[in-house]
Amino acid sequence: MRTAYHEELARFHDRLGDLAGLAEGAIRQATQAVLDNDIDAARKLSAEEETISRLHRLLDADAVTLIARQQPVASELRTIVAGLRMSGDLDRMGALARHIAEIVQRRHPRAVVPEPLRALVAEMGETAQRMAAMARAAMASRDPAAAAELDRQDNEMDRLETTLAQRVIECTPPVEPATAMDLALIGRFYERFGDHAVALAARVAYLVGPVQEDLTV
Amino acid sequence: MRTAYHEELARFHDRLGDLAGLAEGAIRQATQAVLDNDIDAARKLSAEEETISRLHRLLDADAVTLIARQQPVASELRTIVAGLRMSGDLDRMGALARHIAEIVQRRHPRAVVPEPLRALVAEMGETAQRMAAMARAAMASRDPAAAAELDRQDNEMDRLETTLAQRVIECTPPVEPATAMDLALIGRFYERFGDHAVALAARVAYLVGPVQEDLTV
Repeated sequence: MRTAYHEELARFHDRLGDLAGLAEGAIRQATQAVLDNDIDAARKLSAEEETISRLHRLLDADAVTLIARQQPVASELRTIVAGLRMSGDLDRMGALARHIAEIVQRRHPRAVVPEPLRALVAEMGETAQRMAAMARAAMASRDPAAAAELDRQDNEMDRLETTLAQRVIECTPPVEPATAMDLALIGRFYERFGDHAVALAARVAYLVGPVQEDLTV
Repeated sequence: MRTAYHEELARFHDRLGDLAGLAEGAIRQATQAVLDNDIDAARKLSAEEETISRLHRLLDADAVTLIARQQPVASELRTIVAGLRMSGDLDRMGALARHIAEIVQRRHPRAVVPEPLRALVAEMGETAQRMAAMARAAMASRDPAAAAELDRQDNEMDRLETTLAQRVIECTPPVEPATAMDLALIGRFYERFGDHAVALAARVAYLVGPVQEDLTV
């Protein structure tokens, strides 16, 4: 019975790893779509996000079934509840990547990013993808040290969002209001994507840290 | 033992109700801050959101303690896990209200909303507050019918966000890029606030609905 349970627990963690890989791939594709005005990549991403959502719902079901059937001990319960939260973060990361792709679809055939801001948006995309990769690695290796590094990356992401807003405001000739709105949202979506990567690493650090009585996640 | 447990469960639900009341109050204050360019209301809201976050963390701790100590039966587990999700929704609603207030603080003393768009933003604020009130009432009365009505309100909110974007684009003379960016974000924050109210009502409907084997929330 406990062996079957541990197999289920292992499958739960495997699925979580798969989900992290998908979120990382999604933000890479979203950045490609927005920089290259690649409508096919944008459309493909909208379809792929369905896969992420489905996996998220499966993980939710897995977690609750594990708790209900197996009466896990405290440390296992802690892992499962943290896993539920991680699954929620990864689902949102997929949705944020899709939101970026949707802006590309809405504005097509016009490009979303004016040429002078292209390098900055590319840097936000690279930072987001790097943060997702780091969070995924931290989840796989249970490395609590990743949380501090992800905090630093997140400060960098916040700085990039502020810089993007500043550059949009300073553009001459002024950018059109529609472009300004798109860029505000794209900056926001990357920044939120980064926040969720930080949350993932913090949950890993929490899991690896000393066991606390209240199991707060 | 079970009596103490049911008292804890009742306290958990009371706290969830308090949290819903705070989220509703927060969006009302945020709308006042943005429409009246009321810097004091904006600052006050930033402080109050701390209370929401603290209550959210308490609820998380309560939920996990309830599960760990009491080995709840399936229907109770379902309620507690749904409560965890609801607490997460309400915490985000508080954060979204704060984000609106932060834009007011950032642009002060300049007003964020140009006069011709004031009525539209007021309507978004009223819709958001109404949705929060409906979600709170549905949680208190366990009314599964609220989910359908909140879906309708959410369609209205989506329409308002699209209209706001359209009106920003069509303004003559054109709005400044900074104003366009602020309004894109404000529209987005109201729309996301509405999404979470919908999620709350859907979780109530799920809880009241027929018990399912997998307990998916």
